[in-house]
Amino acid sequence: MFNIKNFLHPASPDPVSVWTEFPKYNFVGGHNEADNIPFVELKEAVGKVLLKEGRDLAKYGLESGPQGYLPLRQFIARKLKNRAGIECSDKEILMLSGSLQALELVNQTLLKKGDTVIIEEDNYGGTITRLNKLGIKMVGIPLEADGMNMDELENALVRLESDNIKPRYIYTIPTIQNPTGTVMSVEKRKRLLALSSKFGIPIFEDDCYADLIWEGDRPPAIKSFDTEGYVIYCGSFSKSIAPALRVGYLVAKWEVLSRIMPHKTDAGSGALEQMSLAVFCEDSFDEHVSALTQVLGKKADVMCEAIDEYFGLSATYMRPTGGIFIWVDLSDHVDTSRLAELALKKGVAINPGAEWSINPNGQHKIRLCFGSPSIKEIKEGVQILAKLCRDEFKVSTLVP
Amino acid sequence: MFNIKNFLHPASPDPVSVWTEFPKYNFVGGHNEADNIPFVELKEAVGKVLLKEGRDLAKYGLESGPQGYLPLRQFIARKLKNRAGIECSDKEILMLSGSLQALELVNQTLLKKGDTVIIEEDNYGGTITRLNKLGIKMVGIPLEADGMNMDELENALVRLESDNIKPRYIYTIPTIQNPTGTVMSVEKRKRLLALSSKFGIPIFEDDCYADLIWEGDRPPAIKSFDTEGYVIYCGSFSKSIAPALRVGYLVAKWEVLSRIMPHKTDAGSGALEQMSLAVFCEDSFDEHVSALTQVLGKKADVMCEAIDEYFGLSATYMRPTGGIFIWVDLSDHVDTSRLAELALKKGVAINPGAEWSINPNGQHKIRLCFGSPSIKEIKEGVQILAKLCRDEFKVSTLVP
Repeated sequence: MFNIKNFLHPASPDPVSVWTEFPKYNFVGGHNEADNIPFVELKEAVGKVLLKEGRDLAKYGLESGPQGYLPLRQFIARKLKNRAGIECSDKEILMLSGSLQALELVNQTLLKKGDTVIIEEDNYGGTITRLNKLGIKMVGIPLEADGMNMDELENALVRLESDNIKPRYIYTIPTIQNPTGTVMSVEKRKRLLALSSKFGIPIFEDDCYADLIWEGDRPPAIKSFDTEGYVIYCGSFSKSIAPALRVGYLVAKWEVLSRIMPHKTDAGSGALEQMSLAVFCEDSFDEHVSALTQVLGKKADVMCEAIDEYFGLSATYMRPTGGIFIWVDLSDHVDTSRLAELALKKGVAINPGAEWSINPNGQHKIRLCFGSPSIKEIKEGVQILAKLCRDEFKVSTLVP
Repeated sequence: MFNIKNFLHPASPDPVSVWTEFPKYNFVGGHNEADNIPFVELKEAVGKVLLKEGRDLAKYGLESGPQGYLPLRQFIARKLKNRAGIECSDKEILMLSGSLQALELVNQTLLKKGDTVIIEEDNYGGTITRLNKLGIKMVGIPLEADGMNMDELENALVRLESDNIKPRYIYTIPTIQNPTGTVMSVEKRKRLLALSSKFGIPIFEDDCYADLIWEGDRPPAIKSFDTEGYVIYCGSFSKSIAPALRVGYLVAKWEVLSRIMPHKTDAGSGALEQMSLAVFCEDSFDEHVSALTQVLGKKADVMCEAIDEYFGLSATYMRPTGGIFIWVDLSDHVDTSRLAELALKKGVAINPGAEWSINPNGQHKIRLCFGSPSIKEIKEGVQILAKLCRDEFKVSTLVP
């Protein structure tokens, strides 16, 4: 019998387990609100475009070439101008199979083992995992309510320069930062760009959640202030429309994009998804996102109230003004990796902070996603979590 | 100004050029016959499934988990049983964004720099490129009309063993081999599997073209004889339905699949494409493929006649019994890499053999694809090529 173990190299990842079903209280993953999936409109959109352009499916890249479906790139250029202040041409946009592919491609283009990058110290788990897998050193910058601490960033840049280390990029999720939900101020965006230019380090701006703001203005993207081509920008439709449609995009100057594209060797991203989004978004993006964020805002309120009710003073968090997650600090008593294991046995899935932060104090924090669960599930799940913290970690969850 | 060149590592690939349009005579790429794209039926299929299951788009992986849309996996399990003789469960199938992802994932799972693999010496350019990029040594096995030369394979296995080198896999496209169009005999399939088992080396069976046979029987897949789990199998819908739908799949024992899956970090493959294929294929796959292969067979005949007419004795080839390409030997006079450059200036795109073979004599060969061009384009394009060979390489193209 063939034994795969004889063929695995030392650093091979652990095998996956058989998937059975989603947990009852699913507070992990970027899943969305099922009631707000515009599936009837998507059906109309894909039907319309297939009747018109269905023959083009015979070609890799349709009639649009390797950068992706042109009408969708044209929509994105308009959307980025209107919503993020970015001036770019469809020729500076590369369609992807989700924004995760942006991480893969930018990393493949710029990084090799032993390189250093700068990231916000609490961060998207998938970014941290990818960088670890590639053997990249991460320098973490602390976050404040209005985004990355720019003095700390400048200190880090000076220190690295004096050590003769050139970081390969500064990765930031400036708007609805994952997992903290913070929104970087316009002032800090400009200072970040000035530092980037001064030290000659590109910025990798991940803007996947920015369409989901429901309170306060969305600041212009860092890319909108970028006159020197330092910003590589990525976005996605997973959060604004539907995660199962695997469609994201990269925006960069052609000199940069033409160096990233050789690494996209998948013969293009899915045509039906790009086509249906192009038609749907043209008519309905703004209206759809406006309705979706209303619902998400209500769910966020419900989750905040549940945390207040069941955890009392033993949990602290910043109420989000957009997005689909809350970053909760459970105090030093709680090892949240252990909590996550125990909670899963009770049907509650959470992201333990150790996987979402490169600061050791992340281990006392958790990320709770509220996009997918119902209001009832949010309340019940948070209650179960609070009880676990009380029973297993002796946390006092009395309301003051 | 930001200069990406300062951030590229030494082995970075060359930048891409701006894409403008397809060449007039497009004899490269796996493009398909536009008249045979079942876009009306796909529209009906995707509409039907969206109305029924559209809410599931809210979740990564729909309600099917990370292996891909369950009804499509179930269809594939039935199709593989009926058409390729493979007995497998939907739990042993992983849906992918095209079969190119199969190459990426299997390579990521089994290979590291300096490893050795065995391949058919004339081979898919994308396979050769990927292996070169990873720094893998390729041992090429010559092909005969009925597939890989098994004595040569056995010799290579013995030689490698005596050199203490364990090849990581034997890669084969047994049915409609790319680029030669050869079909491996059943006897050789069994011998290949016996050698695989004797030397303890897995087989990577790439079966992307096997549905496109129009003459003679399709032999059972090597995987169909595999009782010991040595075969990792991949397939695709790009050639049988439409390349712009990015849907392929891997089939392997769970012990193997569970080791491959950690490398699939794209949060799933496109939902609309998987859903529409599941519904369409259930009703219409056999009928559709039967009509498609009739058309492809006619186009192959036209291309063979054009080669005979315009090249005469100066070109030799094996008439294909399936697929979308012909592998043409233009004799030692012709440097086909140079021919490809000259031809492109006249609007004719061809694959020069140096990119599709690890045998140096590949440089005198070309791959001509006939799936996408019209009958008129096939005739005109081949005529232009023949004239170029006559004018530039002093090839006599007189008919005998």
